[in-house]
Amino acid sequence: MNVGLLGCGVIGGGVLQLIDNLPKEKGFKVVKVFDLPIKKDILKERFAENASEVCENSEVDVVIEAMGGDKFPYECIKTALLNKKHVITSNKEVVSLHIEEFYTLAKENGVFFMCEASVGGGIPLICSLIDSAKVDKIDHIYGIINGTTNYILTRMQKDGVSLDEALDDAKALGFAERDATADLEGLDMTRKICILSSIAYGGVVNYSDVYHYGVTNLTKEILKDINSLGYNIKFIAESKLVNDTVRVSVEPVLITNENSLNGVSYEFNAVYYNCLSNGLLGFYGKGAGRFPTASAMVNDLVRINDLKNPYYFKNEKLFKVENFKNESKYYVYDGIKGKIIDKLMDASNYKFVARIF
Amino acid sequence: MNVGLLGCGVIGGGVLQLIDNLPKEKGFKVVKVFDLPIKKDILKERFAENASEVCENSEVDVVIEAMGGDKFPYECIKTALLNKKHVITSNKEVVSLHIEEFYTLAKENGVFFMCEASVGGGIPLICSLIDSAKVDKIDHIYGIINGTTNYILTRMQKDGVSLDEALDDAKALGFAERDATADLEGLDMTRKICILSSIAYGGVVNYSDVYHYGVTNLTKEILKDINSLGYNIKFIAESKLVNDTVRVSVEPVLITNENSLNGVSYEFNAVYYNCLSNGLLGFYGKGAGRFPTASAMVNDLVRINDLKNPYYFKNEKLFKVENFKNESKYYVYDGIKGKIIDKLMDASNYKFVARIF
Repeated sequence: MNVGLLGCGVIGGGVLQLIDNLPKEKGFKVVKVFDLPIKKDILKERFAENASEVCENSEVDVVIEAMGGDKFPYECIKTALLNKKHVITSNKEVVSLHIEEFYTLAKENGVFFMCEASVGGGIPLICSLIDSAKVDKIDHIYGIINGTTNYILTRMQKDGVSLDEALDDAKALGFAERDATADLEGLDMTRKICILSSIAYGGVVNYSDVYHYGVTNLTKEILKDINSLGYNIKFIAESKLVNDTVRVSVEPVLITNENSLNGVSYEFNAVYYNCLSNGLLGFYGKGAGRFPTASAMVNDLVRINDLKNPYYFKNEKLFKVENFKNESKYYVYDGIKGKIIDKLMDASNYKFVARIF
Repeated sequence: MNVGLLGCGVIGGGVLQLIDNLPKEKGFKVVKVFDLPIKKDILKERFAENASEVCENSEVDVVIEAMGGDKFPYECIKTALLNKKHVITSNKEVVSLHIEEFYTLAKENGVFFMCEASVGGGIPLICSLIDSAKVDKIDHIYGIINGTTNYILTRMQKDGVSLDEALDDAKALGFAERDATADLEGLDMTRKICILSSIAYGGVVNYSDVYHYGVTNLTKEILKDINSLGYNIKFIAESKLVNDTVRVSVEPVLITNENSLNGVSYEFNAVYYNCLSNGLLGFYGKGAGRFPTASAMVNDLVRINDLKNPYYFKNEKLFKVENFKNESKYYVYDGIKGKIIDKLMDASNYKFVARIF
C-alpha cells in the first residue's frame, strides 16, 4: 500500500518515521511527501513540490494529511478523494467543518475517509464510537479532549502556579502552540465535540451552534476559592442527545474528588460515552503529541489494509513467565496486625498478603 | 449474514435480543439456536436439538458460542471453524486454553475467530489491543478485569460489610455465580490476563504458569488496617514484557487515593496498557452483565460483516442544539468571591463561571 504524505512537521514527521520503521513485509511505503522546499534535502526523491503530486499521483493509494489549517487541506482532501485515494487526517478544523462532504465523497469514490487522530490523539476513540453507534444507541459523551488546557489546570492545581506561568511551561514542553487562544477559549474542544457528536448521533452538529466558555479568566485566587468549596476544576466538552436535540457545551466544570475525571492530569485526555445496551464506556490516553497522534494515523492506515488482511494470532515467541515478587514491596497480615515488607518469600506464612502497587 | 447461536441463557439470550432488534436492512438473522429442550417452545422453528445443527449447518455463516464451560464448547468451536463458519465467543476458559489453535484453524479455513467479549465484557479492549500490537510495541498491561470481586471489595470498602455479606449481595444482583471460587481465587482473572498477554505480546502465555493469590482471606479488620496505612485495596491482574520474559500475576494490590484504579468501583472494569509510541491507554466499562457482554459479541459480528461494508457517515437527523444551563447549577465569581447559583442567566455578568458537574 503506497502512502502519500501532506505535511512533514511534528505529526507528519512522526507518521513518516513510524511507517518507515514497520517491517517491510507489511507492505506499507511512503512514496511522496509534500512540504516546504526547505525539507527537500532530507526527503530527497520522495519530496513533492506541490500537493497535486501527492493527491493526483497514480502510484499513491492513501493520502495522509498532516498539515493543519483549513482551506488548503480541504482542497487537498477533496482532490484526493475524487482521485480515489483513501484519506487519513488528524485535522480537526477541516473534519469538523466538512465531515459529511468527506464521507460522502469517500463513499461515492469507493475509498475510505478516516479521522481517528482528529480527536483524543492516540486514543482509539472514533473507531470505538463508530462500532458502538452501529449496534447500540449513544446518548451522552463527555470528557477532557484538550491536552493543553488540562496541563495548565493541573499545574495550577498541583503546583499553585498562575495560568500564564503554566501556559509558558506548556509552550516550552510543546503542549501548546504559540497562540493558545483556540485552546484556552475552548474552540479546539468545540471542534472535537462536534466531530464526536456527529458520528455518535448520526447527524451533523455544527461548530457555530455550540456554547463555549473558556478558562482565560481563571486565576489562582478563583482556584483557591473553588477548592475551599470542596471542588476541583476541569475544562470539558459534553454533549447529550435528548430526543432530537443535542445539548452540548464546552466549559469549565467543578467536580468532586470522587469524579473519575479528577484523575486525568496534565496532557492526558479522557472521554466517556454512554450506550443504551453497553452502559458507560471510558477511554484514556495521550490526547496530543507527535507519536500518539502519528500512531492513530498509522492505525487508520492498517485498518484500511486489514479489510483485505484480517488479524490472526501467531504464537511467534517463547516466553518465560514469572511474577512481580522480586521488584515489589508487600503488605503482610499475620492475623493480628499488618506491616509492609521489602520482599515476599512465601505468602502461606501470612493470613493475607497484598502487593504495594 | 446468518447467525447460529450456541446457548440461549443470560448472554446468549441477550445476543438473540440485540440481533433481532437490529434494523432488517442490516441483514443479520439468527437462524438456529442450540439450547436445552426446555427452550424449544420459546425458540420455535429456530430451536436446534443438537449443536451440529448449528456448527455444520450450510445456512449458517457465523457461529456465536455463549454456553460457558470447556470441553463441549471446544469441540463446537473446532467443528464450526472446520466447517468454515466465522466464530464469536465470550468463553474465556476455552479461549485461554486454545487461543492458538482457534486462530490457526480460522486462518486455514478462511474465516474469522473473534473473542472480544471474553475479557472486559462490553469494553472494546481486544480489538484495540490487536490494533495497537500491529503498529506499536505493547510492554505492560494491568487492570481490574473481574466485576464480581471488584463489586465485593468496593462494598467492603464503602459500606463496611464483610466479604460474605458482599458476596451474597453480588449473587442476588447477578454479579456472582453460585460458586464464586473462580472469581475469589483469581482464576477468572488469570484466564483473562493470559488472553490479553498472548494477543499483546504475540506468544502464548499459559494459564498454569501464572502466579495468582486470591482475596478469600480478606476481612473487615484487614481492610481497616490497610486503610490506616493510607491505602485502599484492589484485586488486579498485571503483566509486563521484559525481554523474553512475561512477568505476570493476579493478586490484591494496595493503591493510594491518587491511583486511577481507585475510581473504578462496583462491577466496573478498567484496563490500562502501555505502548512504546502511543504511551499509556486506558479503557473503562462494564466488565460483565447480559447486555454489555452481548453488545461486544454483536460488535464482533458487525466487524466481520464490515470487512465488506465499511462505515460511511450519513447525516440522517436534523438536530436542535442547546446547552446545559437549564439543568445545571453554576459557580460564579464576581471578582472578590465565588458562590453557587441555581441558574446562570449571563456569564458576562461575572469574572468567571463554571458549571457544577
